[in-house]
Amino acid sequence: MTIRVLAFDIFGTTVDWYTGVSRQVGEVFGELGVRLDAGIFASEWRDKYLPSMARVQHGERDWAYLDTLHRESLDDLLDDHGVGEQVDEAARQRLVHAWHRLPAWDDVPGGLRRLREGHVLAALSNGGFALMTNLVKAANLPFDCILSAELARTYKPDARVYRTAAELLDVAPEEVLMVAAHGWDLKGAAEAGLRTAFVERPREKGPDREADKDVEAEFSVRGFPELAEKLGV
Amino acid sequence: MTIRVLAFDIFGTTVDWYTGVSRQVGEVFGELGVRLDAGIFASEWRDKYLPSMARVQHGERDWAYLDTLHRESLDDLLDDHGVGEQVDEAARQRLVHAWHRLPAWDDVPGGLRRLREGHVLAALSNGGFALMTNLVKAANLPFDCILSAELARTYKPDARVYRTAAELLDVAPEEVLMVAAHGWDLKGAAEAGLRTAFVERPREKGPDREADKDVEAEFSVRGFPELAEKLGV
Repeated sequence: MTIRVLAFDIFGTTVDWYTGVSRQVGEVFGELGVRLDAGIFASEWRDKYLPSMARVQHGERDWAYLDTLHRESLDDLLDDHGVGEQVDEAARQRLVHAWHRLPAWDDVPGGLRRLREGHVLAALSNGGFALMTNLVKAANLPFDCILSAELARTYKPDARVYRTAAELLDVAPEEVLMVAAHGWDLKGAAEAGLRTAFVERPREKGPDREADKDVEAEFSVRGFPELAEKLGV
Repeated sequence: MTIRVLAFDIFGTTVDWYTGVSRQVGEVFGELGVRLDAGIFASEWRDKYLPSMARVQHGERDWAYLDTLHRESLDDLLDDHGVGEQVDEAARQRLVHAWHRLPAWDDVPGGLRRLREGHVLAALSNGGFALMTNLVKAANLPFDCILSAELARTYKPDARVYRTAAELLDVAPEEVLMVAAHGWDLKGAAEAGLRTAFVERPREKGPDREADKDVEAEFSVRGFPELAEKLGV
């Protein structure tokens, strides 16, 4: 079956969350005199990402927006480091919003413009609909539509997220190619009947941690232009 | 309160459904030898639009996609004109898809590009999510996101459609300006707490019918560039 829709994971696949979040954390910590390494803090914050969503996905708690999960993780983390009293409400809100403004990887804008010629391009993220709309607008990325796990009121890798995306775009699951830098996301997509493309993003987790590699997928590429080549657009 | 989101009605407000649909109907009828006036047929088809949606909105039938409603109206109309046997399944599907490919009014692309500088631009139509994504892509309109009544599983002017749009974009209803060429749409938006802009589209219903005018709204303009001027962008 022809691939009609390309669904892109965003954090790590399309934008460089590590650089963006650690830079903004560094700014806020600098202003407040908090003496913690911003890069390590960003990584620790991200570590709480999958477990916090899994609780929603498995029905252990009601639907909660990603901003809410980020905020809870942030509060915990600041307390764990004993700096809770140094970081006021306004600063915490600013930190949560760091995830709304992240830089795209260099190859992304040009790659998307090329891919857009032959396919419908959708952002399909665990980030909420508003968060994604703001992030995509700020980074000026030419997606045709914003989708979000929020529309299924659960989180990837729950099959309902991928299937809701296909249903909203009125295509069969096998007409959608999920593009992601994470094995867990592509495994979920494949289980829901989508096709898969792995994008290697070696610096996705920052300089000190290893990113996913050698992930099983129908396509395996090192950037969006290479994906365009493989898809023949 | 600041206006942060502009929500645009599409059929009639942003794109010229009359010209687009009657042209495509004319092509199909021409090929099949159906001797009906394409413009009148397009108008009669559109006449069935609001009543068909009202049945969903008022709970008289379950949620049905706009394509489904368009198809039912089409089938009825072809029978009413006694040409049902001349129009086969493939032609009917092509006709329903006429609503997926419609030309934007001349002022729209430039107006949207200007308005986009200061606001989040959302398409907010009774057309389904897939229909809207296809239509906006084909017309190359720079919306930041696609919204659809489908996401609330009812139709405008039901307040739930407007409120769902505000909730998904994480803003208060009064931070959203609904932009439409129809009084019924703006009335619904106002009742849901949104702000309103009326766009005069005198040829919206074709050359032989009168379009909405003198509609009560906070802003009243003759095109999207005039709206940008009034909003100071």
